[in-house]
Amino acid sequence: MQQSILLIEDSDEDYAMVLRACTGVALDIDIKRCAKGAEALDYLYQRGSFTTALRPTLILMDLNLPGMDGGDLLALIKGDDKLKLIPVIIISTSNNPRDLLACYSRGANAYHMKSVNYPAFKLELQRLLNYWLTDCLIPVRLEEA
Amino acid sequence: MQQSILLIEDSDEDYAMVLRACTGVALDIDIKRCAKGAEALDYLYQRGSFTTALRPTLILMDLNLPGMDGGDLLALIKGDDKLKLIPVIIISTSNNPRDLLACYSRGANAYHMKSVNYPAFKLELQRLLNYWLTDCLIPVRLEEA
Repeated sequence: MQQSILLIEDSDEDYAMVLRACTGVALDIDIKRCAKGAEALDYLYQRGSFTTALRPTLILMDLNLPGMDGGDLLALIKGDDKLKLIPVIIISTSNNPRDLLACYSRGANAYHMKSVNYPAFKLELQRLLNYWLTDCLIPVRLEEA
Repeated sequence: MQQSILLIEDSDEDYAMVLRACTGVALDIDIKRCAKGAEALDYLYQRGSFTTALRPTLILMDLNLPGMDGGDLLALIKGDDKLKLIPVIIISTSNNPRDLLACYSRGANAYHMKSVNYPAFKLELQRLLNYWLTDCLIPVRLEEA
């Protein structure tokens, strides 16, 4: 079954890196990208131009976003009874303990520091996807919740 | 640095299986086991015979526990401002969607179905430990929170 991933990332370069790394994963993945927090909320609530959007089974999220901050977006997702069921994985350039604690406190399922080196990033992203989409059980049909 | 894991598991057999699987991991891990939810809470709050217990960096938890149910224990951990920072990974024999949704709703960081086949269990546990203790950033000093 195809898995739908929402990538919330403002950097075109990092988006391209994620797409490139995903080609090496033996999983059927569809990646949708939102560059801003407000756009991601529209996507998740199936509003505006996203009325036919599929609810993602996994959210990958950068912390530094233009407009709405990633931490605030995380709190909104984890404060919603249905959206909170979607695992949210933070992928950030920050290893500041305050960011780390704030994200786990707000309900992030996991926190990764973004490797600046592409080969390392690729391997880590592939392990991340295999872990969440193969080893873990995650809710796939939120409509049943 | 040694990582301290709290395993909340009532089955002696499953506890032995976890210990055996961990010997194959290239990580310095200390596993403490509590067989009941109430004992786990004493451990986490450093009460009773656990006043010198280290706060674990990771919690692995069975759902079917005698006395306090695993789901209720999860809700208590994730309802506490400090304890909620510790990733809680459910390892359950149940693949019932209701258990899955209830656990993610209550803040479980990840949910695994326990493999009944030991070689499969071992590989999955090793990937789980490597993922959380190597690839992810997790809070190590909760005293700073």
